[in-house]
Amino acid sequence: MNRSDSQDTANLRSFYPFCIPITTRWMDNDVYGHVNNVIYYAWMDTIVNQWLLENELLKSAKNPLVGLVVHSQCNYFSPIAYPQAVVAGLKVVQVGKTSVHYDIGIFQGEKEHPSAQGKFVHVYVEPVSLRPHALSEAFKHALETLR
Amino acid sequence: MNRSDSQDTANLRSFYPFCIPITTRWMDNDVYGHVNNVIYYAWMDTIVNQWLLENELLKSAKNPLVGLVVHSQCNYFSPIAYPQAVVAGLKVVQVGKTSVHYDIGIFQGEKEHPSAQGKFVHVYVEPVSLRPHALSEAFKHALETLR
Amino acid sequence: MNRSDSQDTANLRSFYPFCIPITTRWMDNDVYGHVNNVIYYAWMDTIVNQWLLENELLKSAKNPLVGLVVHSQCNYFSPIAYPQAVVAGLKVVQVGKTSVHYDIGIFQGEKEHPSAQGKFVHVYVEPVSLRPHALSEAFKHALETLR
Amino acid sequence: MNRSDSQDTANLRSFYPFCIPITTRWMDNDVYGHVNNVIYYAWMDTIVNQWLLENELLKSAKNPLVGLVVHSQCNYFSPIAYPQAVVAGLKVVQVGKTSVHYDIGIFQGEKEHPSAQGKFVHVYVEPVSLRPHALSEAFKHALETLR
Repeated sequence: MNRSDSQDTANLRSFYPFCIPITTRWMDNDVYGHVNNVIYYAWMDTIVNQWLLENELLKSAKNPLVGLVVHSQCNYFSPIAYPQAVVAGLKVVQVGKTSVHYDIGIFQGEKEHPSAQGKFVHVYVEPVSLRPHALSEAFKHALETLR
Repeated sequence: MNRSDSQDTANLRSFYPFCIPITTRWMDNDVYGHVNNVIYYAWMDTIVNQWLLENELLKSAKNPLVGLVVHSQCNYFSPIAYPQAVVAGLKVVQVGKTSVHYDIGIFQGEKEHPSAQGKFVHVYVEPVSLRPHALSEAFKHALETLR
Repeated sequence: MNRSDSQDTANLRSFYPFCIPITTRWMDNDVYGHVNNVIYYAWMDTIVNQWLLENELLKSAKNPLVGLVVHSQCNYFSPIAYPQAVVAGLKVVQVGKTSVHYDIGIFQGEKEHPSAQGKFVHVYVEPVSLRPHALSEAFKHALETLR
Repeated sequence: MNRSDSQDTANLRSFYPFCIPITTRWMDNDVYGHVNNVIYYAWMDTIVNQWLLENELLKSAKNPLVGLVVHSQCNYFSPIAYPQAVVAGLKVVQVGKTSVHYDIGIFQGEKEHPSAQGKFVHVYVEPVSLRPHALSEAFKHALETLR
Protein backbone atom coordinates (compact mmCIF):
# COMPACT_ATOMS: atom_id res chain seq x y z
CA MET A 1 0.00 0.00 0.00
CA ASN A 2 1.12 3.54 -0.63
CA ARG A 3 0.67 6.84 1.17
CA SER A 4 -2.88 7.17 -0.05
CA ASP A 5 -3.95 4.19 2.03
CA SER A 6 -6.00 6.26 4.45
CA GLN A 7 -9.19 8.14 3.75
CA ASP A 8 -7.81 11.03 5.84
CA THR A 9 -4.72 11.56 3.73
CA ALA A 10 -6.33 10.73 0.40
CA ASN A 11 -6.90 13.40 -2.22
CA LEU A 12 -10.08 15.46 -1.98
CA ARG A 13 -12.47 16.02 -4.83
CA SER A 14 -10.95 19.43 -5.64
CA PHE A 15 -7.66 17.67 -6.42
CA TYR A 16 -9.11 16.32 -9.67
CA PRO A 17 -9.39 18.57 -12.74
CA PHE A 18 -11.72 16.17 -14.63
CA CYS A 19 -14.79 14.61 -13.04
CA ILE A 20 -17.64 12.51 -14.44
CA PRO A 21 -20.84 11.10 -12.96
CA ILE A 22 -21.23 7.34 -12.96
CA THR A 23 -24.42 5.40 -12.33
CA THR A 24 -24.22 2.19 -10.35
CA ARG A 25 -25.97 -1.01 -11.42
CA TRP A 26 -27.88 -3.58 -9.42
CA MET A 27 -25.44 -6.32 -10.30
CA ASP A 28 -22.49 -4.18 -9.12
CA ASN A 29 -23.51 -5.15 -5.60
CA ASP A 30 -22.12 -8.43 -4.31
CA VAL A 31 -23.49 -10.72 -1.61
CA TYR A 32 -22.55 -8.20 1.08
CA GLY A 33 -24.84 -5.60 -0.50
CA HIS A 34 -21.96 -3.33 -1.53
CA VAL A 35 -20.39 -2.60 -4.87
CA ASN A 36 -17.83 -5.33 -5.52
CA ASN A 37 -14.18 -4.27 -5.47
CA VAL A 38 -13.77 -5.21 -9.13
CA ILE A 39 -16.29 -2.63 -10.31
CA TYR A 40 -14.15 0.28 -9.14
CA TYR A 41 -11.64 -0.63 -11.84
CA ALA A 42 -14.40 -0.48 -14.46
CA TRP A 43 -15.04 3.08 -13.32
CA MET A 44 -11.35 4.00 -13.42
CA ASP A 45 -11.02 2.47 -16.86
CA THR A 46 -14.05 4.49 -17.94
CA ILE A 47 -12.91 7.92 -16.77
CA VAL A 48 -9.44 7.54 -18.32
CA ASN A 49 -10.87 6.56 -21.68
CA GLN A 50 -13.62 9.17 -21.52
CA TRP A 51 -11.09 11.96 -21.03
CA LEU A 52 -8.98 10.58 -23.88
CA LEU A 53 -12.06 10.35 -26.13
CA GLU A 54 -13.26 13.86 -25.32
CA ASN A 55 -9.81 15.15 -26.20
CA GLU A 56 -9.59 13.01 -29.35
CA LEU A 57 -6.60 11.15 -27.96
CA LEU A 58 -7.94 7.61 -28.18
CA LYS A 59 -6.67 5.86 -31.33
CA SER A 60 -6.90 9.00 -33.40
CA ALA A 61 -4.96 11.31 -35.68
CA LYS A 62 -3.84 13.15 -32.57
CA ASN A 63 -2.58 9.93 -30.98
CA PRO A 64 -2.06 6.95 -33.31
CA LEU A 65 -0.54 4.85 -30.51
CA VAL A 66 -2.40 2.35 -28.36
CA GLY A 67 -2.34 2.58 -24.56
CA LEU A 68 -1.73 -0.71 -22.76
CA VAL A 69 -2.60 -0.86 -19.08
CA VAL A 70 0.55 -2.11 -17.33
CA HIS A 71 -0.45 -1.36 -13.75
CA SER A 72 -3.50 -0.45 -11.75
CA GLN A 73 -4.27 -0.35 -8.07
CA CYS A 74 -6.93 0.80 -5.67
CA ASN A 75 -7.22 1.63 -1.98
CA TYR A 76 -10.74 1.18 -0.65
CA PHE A 77 -11.82 3.42 2.22
CA SER A 78 -15.58 3.09 2.61
CA PRO A 79 -18.20 1.02 0.84
CA ILE A 80 -20.53 2.22 -1.90
CA ALA A 81 -23.83 0.53 -2.65
CA TYR A 82 -26.16 0.59 -5.63
CA PRO A 83 -28.25 2.71 -6.23
CA GLN A 84 -25.89 5.42 -4.94
CA ALA A 85 -24.54 7.77 -7.58
CA VAL A 86 -20.77 8.01 -7.92
CA VAL A 87 -18.44 10.70 -9.20
CA ALA A 88 -15.00 9.77 -10.51
CA GLY A 89 -12.14 12.29 -10.64
CA LEU A 90 -9.04 12.08 -12.81
CA LYS A 91 -5.60 13.69 -12.64
CA VAL A 92 -2.33 13.03 -14.42
CA VAL A 93 0.43 12.60 -11.86
CA GLN A 94 3.36 11.52 -14.02
CA VAL A 95 4.20 11.57 -17.71
CA GLY A 96 7.13 9.46 -18.85
CA LYS A 97 8.66 9.05 -22.28
CA THR A 98 6.15 6.35 -23.21
CA SER A 99 3.86 6.18 -20.18
CA VAL A 100 1.13 8.12 -18.39
CA HIS A 101 0.30 7.70 -14.69
CA TYR A 102 -3.19 8.69 -13.58
CA ASP A 103 -4.60 9.17 -10.11
CA ILE A 104 -8.34 8.51 -9.76
CA GLY A 105 -10.70 9.34 -6.93
CA ILE A 106 -14.07 7.67 -6.43
CA PHE A 107 -16.58 9.84 -4.56
CA GLN A 108 -19.99 8.98 -3.23
CA GLY A 109 -22.61 11.62 -3.87
CA GLU A 110 -21.43 15.08 -2.84
CA LYS A 111 -18.72 13.97 -0.44
CA GLU A 112 -15.32 15.67 -0.47
CA HIS A 113 -13.43 12.65 0.88
CA PRO A 114 -13.11 9.73 -1.51
CA SER A 115 -14.57 6.28 -1.01
CA ALA A 116 -11.60 4.90 -2.92
CA GLN A 117 -8.46 6.13 -4.61
CA GLY A 118 -6.67 4.39 -7.45
CA LYS A 119 -3.78 4.50 -9.84
CA PHE A 120 -3.75 3.57 -13.48
CA VAL A 121 -0.68 3.40 -15.74
CA HIS A 122 -0.74 3.31 -19.53
CA VAL A 123 2.28 2.49 -21.67
CA TYR A 124 1.85 3.57 -25.26
CA VAL A 125 2.83 1.18 -28.01
CA GLU A 126 2.78 0.97 -31.77
CA PRO A 127 -0.47 -0.73 -32.80
CA VAL A 128 1.13 -3.58 -34.75
CA SER A 129 4.49 -4.29 -33.11
CA LEU A 130 3.20 -3.47 -29.63
CA ARG A 131 6.59 -1.90 -28.91
CA PRO A 132 6.66 1.13 -26.61
CA HIS A 133 6.79 4.39 -28.56
CA ALA A 134 7.50 7.92 -27.38
CA LEU A 135 4.44 10.07 -26.76
CA SER A 136 3.97 12.91 -29.20
CA GLU A 137 4.43 16.50 -28.09
CA ALA A 138 0.76 17.15 -28.88
CA PHE A 139 -0.32 14.31 -26.59
CA LYS A 140 1.99 15.46 -23.80
CA HIS A 141 0.69 18.98 -24.21
CA ALA A 142 -2.90 17.78 -23.77
CA LEU A 143 -1.93 15.75 -20.71
CA GLU A 144 -0.58 18.93 -19.08
CA THR A 145 -4.14 20.21 -18.82
CA LEU A 146 -4.92 17.27 -16.51
CA ARG A 147 -2.13 17.99 -14.00
CA MET B 1 -39.57 -12.96 -31.35
CA ASN B 2 -42.65 -11.01 -30.43
CA ARG B 3 -44.48 -8.06 -31.95
CA SER B 4 -41.91 -5.63 -30.60
CA ASP B 5 -39.23 -7.02 -32.88
CA SER B 6 -39.06 -3.93 -35.06
CA GLN B 7 -37.82 -0.49 -34.11
CA ASP B 8 -40.79 1.00 -35.97
CA THR B 9 -43.44 -0.79 -33.94
CA ALA B 10 -41.59 -0.67 -30.63
CA ASN B 11 -42.80 1.51 -27.79
CA LEU B 12 -41.69 5.13 -27.75
CA ARG B 13 -40.13 6.87 -24.79
CA SER B 14 -43.45 8.41 -23.74
CA PHE B 15 -44.81 4.88 -23.20
CA TYR B 16 -42.73 4.52 -20.03
CA PRO B 17 -43.87 6.15 -16.79
CA PHE B 18 -40.49 5.68 -15.03
CA CYS B 19 -37.19 6.61 -16.66
CA ILE B 20 -33.62 6.71 -15.36
CA PRO B 21 -30.31 7.84 -16.87
CA ILE B 22 -27.59 5.21 -17.17
CA THR B 23 -23.92 5.84 -17.87
CA THR B 24 -22.06 3.44 -20.13
CA ARG B 25 -18.64 2.03 -19.27
CA TRP B 26 -15.58 1.49 -21.42
CA MET B 27 -15.67 -2.24 -20.85
CA ASP B 28 -19.33 -2.42 -21.92
CA ASN B 29 -18.04 -2.21 -25.49
CA ASP B 30 -17.02 -5.47 -27.09
CA VAL B 31 -14.61 -6.12 -29.94
CA TYR B 32 -17.02 -4.58 -32.43
CA GLY B 33 -16.90 -1.27 -30.57
CA HIS B 34 -20.53 -1.47 -29.43
CA VAL B 35 -22.10 -2.22 -26.09
CA ASN B 36 -22.26 -5.99 -25.76
CA ASN B 37 -25.75 -7.52 -25.85
CA VAL B 38 -25.37 -8.81 -22.29
CA ILE B 39 -25.04 -5.33 -20.80
CA TYR B 40 -28.59 -4.38 -21.79
CA TYR B 41 -29.83 -6.91 -19.25
CA ALA B 42 -27.73 -5.26 -16.54
CA TRP B 43 -29.57 -2.03 -17.35
CA MET B 44 -32.99 -3.73 -17.31
CA ASP B 45 -32.15 -5.39 -14.00
CA THR B 46 -31.09 -1.98 -12.67
CA ILE B 47 -34.21 -0.02 -13.57
CA VAL B 48 -36.55 -2.66 -12.18
CA ASN B 49 -34.74 -2.78 -8.85
CA GLN B 50 -34.32 0.99 -8.73
CA TRP B 51 -38.05 1.52 -9.05
CA LEU B 52 -38.69 -1.13 -6.38
CA LEU B 53 -36.13 0.50 -4.06
CA GLU B 54 -37.48 4.00 -4.55
CA ASN B 55 -40.92 2.68 -3.66
CA GLU B 56 -39.63 0.64 -0.71
CA LEU B 57 -40.75 -2.58 -2.35
CA LEU B 58 -37.44 -4.44 -2.40
CA LYS B 59 -37.17 -6.85 0.54
CA SER B 60 -38.96 -4.51 2.87
CA ALA B 61 -41.82 -4.17 5.29
CA LYS B 62 -43.99 -3.21 2.32
CA ASN B 63 -42.94 -6.35 0.43
CA PRO B 64 -41.35 -9.15 2.46
CA LEU B 65 -41.24 -11.48 -0.56
CA VAL B 66 -38.28 -11.99 -2.85
CA GLY B 67 -38.60 -11.52 -6.60
CA LEU B 68 -37.02 -14.27 -8.70
CA VAL B 69 -36.38 -13.53 -12.35
CA VAL B 70 -38.05 -16.35 -14.29
CA HIS B 71 -37.88 -14.85 -17.77
CA SER B 72 -36.19 -12.01 -19.59
CA GLN B 73 -35.78 -11.13 -23.23
CA CYS B 74 -34.55 -8.34 -25.43
CA ASN B 75 -34.98 -7.22 -29.02
CA TYR B 76 -32.03 -5.19 -30.27
CA PHE B 77 -32.74 -2.54 -32.91
CA SER B 78 -29.66 -0.33 -33.22
CA PRO B 79 -26.26 -0.37 -31.54
CA ILE B 80 -25.18 1.80 -28.62
CA ALA B 81 -21.55 2.59 -27.94
CA TYR B 82 -19.70 3.86 -24.90
CA PRO B 83 -19.44 6.76 -24.02
CA GLN B 84 -23.03 7.43 -25.16
CA ALA B 85 -25.51 8.11 -22.39
CA VAL B 86 -28.53 5.86 -22.13
CA VAL B 87 -32.00 6.29 -20.70
CA ALA B 88 -33.98 3.26 -19.59
CA GLY B 89 -37.77 3.33 -19.32
CA LEU B 90 -39.97 1.00 -17.27
CA LYS B 91 -43.63 0.02 -17.41
CA VAL B 92 -45.66 -2.74 -15.81
CA VAL B 93 -47.56 -4.62 -18.48
CA GLN B 94 -49.04 -7.50 -16.51
CA VAL B 95 -49.62 -8.33 -12.85
CA GLY B 96 -50.45 -11.90 -11.97
CA LYS B 97 -51.26 -13.49 -8.64
CA THR B 98 -47.57 -14.01 -7.88
CA SER B 99 -45.80 -12.41 -10.85
CA VAL B 100 -45.02 -9.04 -12.39
CA HIS B 101 -44.24 -8.50 -16.06
CA TYR B 102 -42.23 -5.41 -16.98
CA ASP B 103 -41.57 -3.85 -20.36
CA ILE B 104 -38.31 -1.92 -20.64
CA GLY B 105 -37.12 0.47 -23.32
CA ILE B 106 -33.48 1.42 -23.86
CA PHE B 107 -33.01 4.82 -25.46
CA GLN B 108 -29.90 6.49 -26.76
CA GLY B 109 -29.58 10.15 -25.81
CA GLU B 110 -32.73 12.10 -26.60
CA LYS B 111 -34.16 9.71 -29.16
CA GLU B 112 -37.85 8.81 -29.08
CA HIS B 113 -37.39 5.41 -30.72
CA PRO B 114 -35.70 2.77 -28.61
CA SER B 115 -32.37 1.12 -29.36
CA ALA B 116 -33.69 -1.99 -27.66
CA GLN B 117 -36.84 -3.22 -25.96
CA GLY B 118 -37.00 -5.93 -23.35
CA LYS B 119 -39.22 -7.91 -21.05
CA PHE B 120 -38.51 -8.94 -17.50
CA VAL B 121 -40.68 -11.22 -15.36
CA HIS B 122 -40.46 -11.58 -11.60
CA VAL B 123 -42.16 -14.33 -9.63
CA TYR B 124 -42.43 -13.53 -5.95
CA VAL B 125 -41.54 -16.22 -3.46
CA GLU B 126 -41.25 -16.67 0.28
CA PRO B 127 -37.63 -15.97 1.26
CA VAL B 128 -36.96 -19.35 2.89
CA SER B 129 -39.14 -21.89 1.10
CA LEU B 130 -38.78 -20.13 -2.28
CA ARG B 131 -42.42 -21.05 -2.93
CA PRO B 132 -44.49 -18.59 -4.97
CA HIS B 133 -46.61 -16.38 -2.76
CA ALA B 134 -49.46 -14.05 -3.64
CA LEU B 135 -48.54 -10.39 -4.00
CA SER B 136 -49.91 -8.13 -1.29
CA GLU B 137 -52.61 -5.60 -2.11
CA ALA B 138 -50.19 -2.81 -1.16
CA PHE B 139 -47.63 -4.06 -3.64
CA LYS B 140 -50.22 -4.46 -6.39
CA HIS B 141 -51.46 -0.98 -5.65
CA ALA B 142 -47.96 0.46 -6.07
CA LEU B 143 -47.51 -1.45 -9.31
CA GLU B 144 -50.63 0.23 -10.70
CA THR B 145 -48.75 3.53 -10.77
CA LEU B 146 -46.34 1.98 -13.28
CA ARG B 147 -48.99 0.95 -15.78
CA MET C 1 -42.80 -16.94 -22.35
CA ASN C 2 -42.57 -19.87 -24.69
CA ARG C 3 -43.08 -23.60 -24.35
CA SER C 4 -39.69 -24.04 -22.71
CA ASP C 5 -40.84 -22.12 -19.66
CA SER C 6 -40.86 -25.16 -17.41
CA GLN C 7 -37.89 -27.15 -16.22
CA ASP C 8 -39.88 -30.32 -16.88
CA THR C 9 -40.45 -29.64 -20.56
CA ALA C 10 -37.10 -27.99 -21.21
CA ASN C 11 -34.46 -29.70 -23.32
CA LEU C 12 -32.13 -32.15 -21.61
CA ARG C 13 -28.37 -32.05 -21.85
CA SER C 14 -28.33 -34.73 -24.56
CA PHE C 15 -30.29 -32.35 -26.81
CA TYR C 16 -27.19 -30.20 -27.33
CA PRO C 17 -24.49 -31.30 -29.78
CA PHE C 18 -21.89 -28.79 -28.49
CA CYS C 19 -21.15 -28.32 -24.79
CA ILE C 20 -18.50 -26.32 -22.93
CA PRO C 21 -17.57 -25.99 -19.26
CA ILE C 22 -17.87 -22.54 -17.71
CA THR C 23 -16.42 -21.42 -14.40
CA THR C 24 -18.44 -19.07 -12.23
CA ARG C 25 -16.96 -15.99 -10.58
CA TRP C 26 -17.42 -14.57 -7.11
CA MET C 27 -18.88 -11.37 -8.47
CA ASP C 28 -21.43 -13.31 -10.56
CA ASN C 29 -23.38 -13.75 -7.34
CA ASP C 30 -25.72 -10.93 -6.42
CA VAL C 31 -27.06 -9.93 -3.02
CA TYR C 32 -29.25 -13.03 -2.87
CA GLY C 33 -26.17 -15.25 -3.10
CA HIS C 34 -27.07 -16.58 -6.54
CA VAL C 35 -25.67 -15.90 -9.98
CA ASN C 36 -27.37 -12.76 -11.26
CA ASN C 37 -29.76 -13.24 -14.18
CA VAL C 38 -27.59 -11.07 -16.43
CA ILE C 39 -24.62 -13.43 -16.23
CA TYR C 40 -26.49 -16.22 -18.01
CA TYR C 41 -26.43 -14.09 -21.14
CA ALA C 42 -22.64 -13.75 -20.85
CA TRP C 43 -22.48 -17.55 -20.90
CA MET C 44 -24.84 -17.81 -23.89
CA ASP C 45 -22.83 -15.19 -25.74
CA THR C 46 -19.67 -17.15 -24.92
CA ILE C 47 -20.78 -20.55 -26.18
CA VAL C 48 -22.13 -19.18 -29.46
CA ASN C 49 -18.89 -17.34 -30.21
CA GLN C 50 -16.74 -20.23 -29.02
CA TRP C 51 -18.40 -22.61 -31.46
CA LEU C 52 -18.03 -20.06 -34.25
CA LEU C 53 -14.35 -19.54 -33.37
CA GLU C 54 -13.57 -23.26 -33.20
CA ASN C 55 -15.13 -23.65 -36.64
CA GLU C 56 -13.37 -20.57 -38.03
CA LEU C 57 -16.68 -18.85 -38.66
CA LEU C 58 -16.13 -15.68 -36.64
CA LYS C 59 -15.03 -12.81 -38.87
CA SER C 60 -12.93 -15.06 -41.07
CA ALA C 61 -12.28 -16.15 -44.61
CA LYS C 62 -14.98 -18.77 -44.14
CA ASN C 63 -17.48 -16.11 -42.97
CA PRO C 64 -16.63 -12.47 -43.76
CA LEU C 65 -19.97 -11.24 -42.39
CA VAL C 66 -20.60 -9.92 -38.90
CA GLY C 67 -23.29 -11.42 -36.68
CA LEU C 68 -25.48 -8.88 -34.90
CA VAL C 69 -27.53 -10.10 -31.97
CA VAL C 70 -31.13 -9.07 -32.71
CA HIS C 71 -32.90 -11.12 -30.05
CA SER C 72 -32.06 -13.10 -26.95
CA GLN C 73 -34.14 -14.54 -24.15
CA CYS C 74 -33.84 -16.82 -21.18
CA ASN C 75 -36.14 -18.86 -18.98
CA TYR C 76 -34.74 -19.42 -15.50
CA PHE C 77 -35.71 -22.64 -13.71
CA SER C 78 -33.44 -23.01 -10.68
CA PRO C 79 -30.69 -20.87 -9.21
CA ILE C 80 -26.96 -21.41 -9.67
CA ALA C 81 -24.41 -20.08 -7.20
CA TYR C 82 -20.69 -19.46 -7.41
CA PRO C 83 -18.49 -21.54 -7.02
CA GLN C 84 -20.64 -24.15 -8.81
CA ALA C 85 -19.35 -25.23 -12.19
CA VAL C 86 -21.65 -24.80 -15.16
CA VAL C 87 -21.95 -26.51 -18.51
CA ALA C 88 -23.51 -24.70 -21.45
CA GLY C 89 -25.00 -26.57 -24.40
CA LEU C 90 -25.63 -25.19 -27.89
CA LYS C 91 -27.87 -26.24 -30.77
CA VAL C 92 -28.96 -24.54 -33.97
CA VAL C 93 -32.74 -24.60 -34.20
CA GLN C 94 -33.38 -22.44 -37.25
CA VAL C 95 -31.32 -21.11 -40.15
CA GLY C 96 -32.82 -18.33 -42.23
CA LYS C 97 -31.50 -16.57 -45.29
CA THR C 98 -29.53 -14.12 -43.16
CA SER C 99 -30.14 -15.32 -39.61
CA VAL C 100 -29.25 -18.12 -37.22
CA HIS C 101 -31.37 -19.11 -34.21
CA TYR C 102 -29.60 -20.92 -31.37
CA ASP C 103 -31.03 -22.75 -28.39
CA ILE C 104 -28.82 -22.81 -25.31
CA GLY C 105 -29.08 -24.87 -22.16
CA ILE C 106 -27.37 -24.00 -18.89
CA PHE C 107 -26.66 -27.01 -16.68
CA GLN C 108 -25.38 -27.17 -13.14
CA GLY C 109 -22.72 -29.82 -12.58
CA GLU C 110 -23.75 -33.20 -13.94
CA LYS C 111 -27.50 -32.57 -14.01
CA GLU C 112 -29.55 -33.64 -17.02
CA HIS C 113 -32.27 -31.00 -16.50
CA PRO C 114 -31.22 -27.44 -17.24
CA SER C 115 -31.08 -24.60 -14.71
CA ALA C 116 -31.97 -22.24 -17.54
CA GLN C 117 -32.75 -22.34 -21.25
CA GLY C 118 -32.22 -19.51 -23.67
CA LYS C 119 -32.50 -18.38 -27.25
CA PHE C 120 -30.05 -16.27 -29.19
CA VAL C 121 -30.58 -14.90 -32.71
CA HIS C 122 -27.85 -13.54 -34.98
CA VAL C 123 -28.54 -11.62 -38.15
CA TYR C 124 -25.54 -11.48 -40.42
CA VAL C 125 -24.61 -8.17 -42.01
CA GLU C 126 -21.94 -6.71 -44.23
CA PRO C 127 -19.22 -5.26 -41.98
CA VAL C 128 -19.37 -1.71 -43.35
CA SER C 129 -22.94 -1.12 -44.50
CA LEU C 130 -24.41 -3.25 -41.69
CA ARG C 131 -27.01 -4.46 -44.22
CA PRO C 132 -28.24 -8.04 -43.86
CA HIS C 133 -26.47 -10.38 -46.24
CA ALA C 134 -27.24 -13.96 -47.21
CA LEU C 135 -25.27 -16.62 -45.36
CA SER C 136 -22.77 -18.49 -47.51
CA GLU C 137 -23.35 -22.14 -48.35
CA ALA C 138 -20.17 -23.02 -46.45
CA PHE C 139 -21.48 -21.33 -43.33
CA LYS C 140 -24.88 -22.99 -43.64
CA HIS C 141 -23.17 -26.31 -44.15
CA ALA C 142 -21.19 -25.87 -40.93
CA LEU C 143 -24.34 -24.88 -39.06
CA GLU C 144 -25.94 -28.19 -40.08
CA THR C 145 -23.50 -30.00 -37.81
CA LEU C 146 -25.05 -28.16 -34.85
CA ARG C 147 -28.60 -29.27 -35.52
CA MET D 1 4.72 -0.35 -9.13
CA ASN D 2 6.53 -2.90 -7.05
CA ARG D 3 9.33 -5.34 -7.69
CA SER D 4 7.02 -7.67 -9.55
CA ASP D 5 6.59 -5.17 -12.35
CA SER D 6 8.47 -7.29 -14.88
CA GLN D 7 7.44 -10.62 -16.33
CA ASP D 8 11.04 -11.83 -15.87
CA THR D 9 11.16 -11.25 -12.12
CA ALA D 10 7.53 -12.19 -11.46
CA ASN D 11 6.65 -15.35 -9.57
CA LEU D 12 6.39 -18.57 -11.57
CA ARG D 13 3.47 -20.94 -11.43
CA SER D 14 5.23 -23.22 -8.96
CA PHE D 15 5.27 -20.35 -6.46
CA TYR D 16 1.54 -20.75 -5.86
CA PRO D 17 0.25 -23.52 -3.58
CA PHE D 18 -3.40 -23.17 -4.74
CA CYS D 19 -4.37 -22.99 -8.41
CA ILE D 20 -7.74 -23.01 -10.18
CA PRO D 21 -8.78 -23.03 -13.83
CA ILE D 22 -10.82 -20.09 -15.08
CA THR D 23 -12.75 -19.90 -18.33
CA THR D 24 -12.78 -16.63 -20.22
CA ARG D 25 -15.95 -15.10 -21.66
CA TRP D 26 -16.61 -13.42 -24.97
CA MET D 27 -17.51 -10.14 -23.30
CA ASP D 28 -14.23 -10.17 -21.31
CA ASN D 29 -12.56 -8.97 -24.50
CA ASP D 30 -12.59 -5.23 -25.10
CA VAL D 31 -12.32 -3.32 -28.36
CA TYR D 32 -8.67 -4.28 -28.70
CA GLY D 33 -9.60 -7.97 -28.75
CA HIS D 34 -7.94 -8.71 -25.41
CA VAL D 35 -9.35 -9.36 -21.98
CA ASN D 36 -10.02 -5.99 -20.37
CA ASN D 37 -7.79 -5.06 -17.44
CA VAL D 38 -10.79 -4.99 -15.08
CA ILE D 39 -11.55 -8.69 -15.56
CA TYR D 40 -8.26 -9.76 -13.97
CA TYR D 41 -9.59 -8.45 -10.68
CA ALA D 42 -12.71 -10.59 -11.06
CA TRP D 43 -10.40 -13.59 -11.33
CA MET D 44 -8.33 -12.54 -8.31
CA ASP D 45 -11.50 -11.99 -6.31
CA THR D 46 -12.67 -15.43 -7.39
CA ILE D 47 -9.60 -17.43 -6.39
CA VAL D 48 -9.36 -15.79 -2.96
CA ASN D 49 -12.99 -16.53 -2.17
CA GLN D 50 -12.82 -20.00 -3.66
CA TRP D 51 -9.94 -20.96 -1.38
CA LEU D 52 -11.79 -19.49 1.60
CA LEU D 53 -14.95 -21.39 0.67
CA GLU D 54 -13.17 -24.70 0.16
CA ASN D 55 -11.62 -24.28 3.59
CA GLU D 56 -14.91 -23.19 5.18
CA LEU D 57 -13.45 -19.81 6.06
CA LEU D 58 -15.96 -17.59 4.31
CA LYS D 59 -18.59 -16.28 6.74
CA SER D 60 -18.67 -19.52 8.68
CA ALA D 61 -18.34 -21.05 12.10
CA LYS D 62 -14.61 -21.26 11.48
CA ASN D 63 -14.45 -17.56 10.61
CA PRO D 64 -17.43 -15.41 11.69
CA LEU D 65 -15.68 -12.21 10.52
CA VAL D 66 -16.17 -10.51 7.17
CA GLY D 67 -13.22 -9.73 4.92
CA LEU D 68 -13.23 -6.25 3.44
CA VAL D 69 -10.97 -5.61 0.47
CA VAL D 70 -8.86 -2.58 1.41
CA HIS D 71 -6.29 -2.78 -1.36
CA SER D 72 -5.73 -4.55 -4.64
CA GLN D 73 -3.30 -4.08 -7.47
CA CYS D 74 -2.16 -5.76 -10.66
CA ASN D 75 0.85 -5.64 -12.95
CA TYR D 76 0.02 -6.68 -16.49
CA PHE D 77 2.77 -8.35 -18.52
CA SER D 78 1.21 -9.85 -21.62
CA PRO D 79 -2.33 -9.86 -22.99
CA ILE D 80 -4.82 -12.71 -22.70
CA ALA D 81 -7.70 -13.14 -25.13
CA TYR D 82 -10.94 -15.07 -25.00
CA PRO D 83 -11.30 -18.02 -25.63
CA GLN D 84 -7.94 -18.79 -24.00
CA ALA D 85 -8.11 -20.73 -20.75
CA VAL D 86 -6.54 -19.17 -17.69
CA VAL D 87 -5.12 -20.57 -14.49
CA ALA D 88 -4.97 -18.42 -11.37
CA GLY D 89 -2.54 -19.14 -8.53
CA LEU D 90 -2.85 -17.98 -4.92
CA LYS D 91 -0.37 -17.59 -2.08
CA VAL D 92 -0.54 -15.86 1.28
CA VAL D 93 2.41 -13.49 1.62
CA GLN D 94 1.59 -11.70 4.86
CA VAL D 95 -0.75 -12.25 7.80
CA GLY D 96 -1.30 -9.33 10.16
CA LYS D 97 -3.35 -9.10 13.31
CA THR D 98 -6.52 -8.33 11.33
CA SER D 99 -5.39 -8.56 7.71
CA VAL D 100 -4.34 -11.05 5.06
CA HIS D 101 -2.18 -10.19 2.05
CA TYR D 102 -2.44 -12.46 -0.97
CA ASP D 103 -0.26 -12.68 -4.05
CA ILE D 104 -2.03 -13.89 -7.20
CA GLY D 105 -0.58 -15.04 -10.50
CA ILE D 106 -2.57 -15.19 -13.74
CA PHE D 107 -1.25 -17.75 -16.21
CA GLN D 108 -2.23 -18.41 -19.79
CA GLY D 109 -2.59 -22.08 -20.68
CA GLU D 110 0.42 -24.11 -19.57
CA LYS D 111 2.87 -21.23 -19.32
CA GLU D 112 5.24 -20.97 -16.34
CA HIS D 113 5.61 -17.19 -16.55
CA PRO D 114 2.54 -15.20 -15.56
CA SER D 115 0.54 -12.91 -17.83
CA ALA D 116 -0.21 -10.77 -14.78
CA GLN D 117 0.57 -10.67 -11.08
CA GLY D 118 -1.58 -9.05 -8.46
CA LYS D 119 -1.99 -8.32 -4.79
CA PHE D 120 -5.16 -8.46 -2.75
CA VAL D 121 -5.53 -7.37 0.89
CA HIS D 122 -8.42 -8.28 3.18
CA VAL D 123 -9.03 -6.63 6.53
CA TYR D 124 -11.34 -8.65 8.72
CA VAL D 125 -14.12 -6.87 10.55
CA GLU D 126 -17.03 -7.66 12.81
CA PRO D 127 -20.12 -8.11 10.61
CA VAL D 128 -22.23 -5.42 12.28
CA SER D 129 -19.85 -2.76 13.58
CA LEU D 130 -17.44 -3.21 10.64
CA ARG D 131 -14.61 -2.68 13.12
CA PRO D 132 -11.37 -4.59 12.51
CA HIS D 133 -11.15 -7.71 14.63
CA ALA D 134 -8.21 -10.02 15.32
CA LEU D 135 -8.07 -13.16 13.21
CA SER D 136 -8.70 -16.36 15.11
CA GLU D 137 -5.88 -18.84 15.64
CA ALA D 138 -7.81 -21.40 13.59
CA PHE D 139 -8.01 -19.00 10.65
CA LYS D 140 -4.33 -18.10 10.92
CA HIS D 141 -3.48 -21.78 11.08
CA ALA D 142 -5.38 -22.45 7.87
CA LEU D 143 -3.68 -19.50 6.16
CA GLU D 144 -0.28 -21.07 6.96
CA THR D 145 -1.06 -23.83 4.46
CA LEU D 146 -1.17 -21.20 1.73
CA ARG D 147 2.31 -19.78 2.42
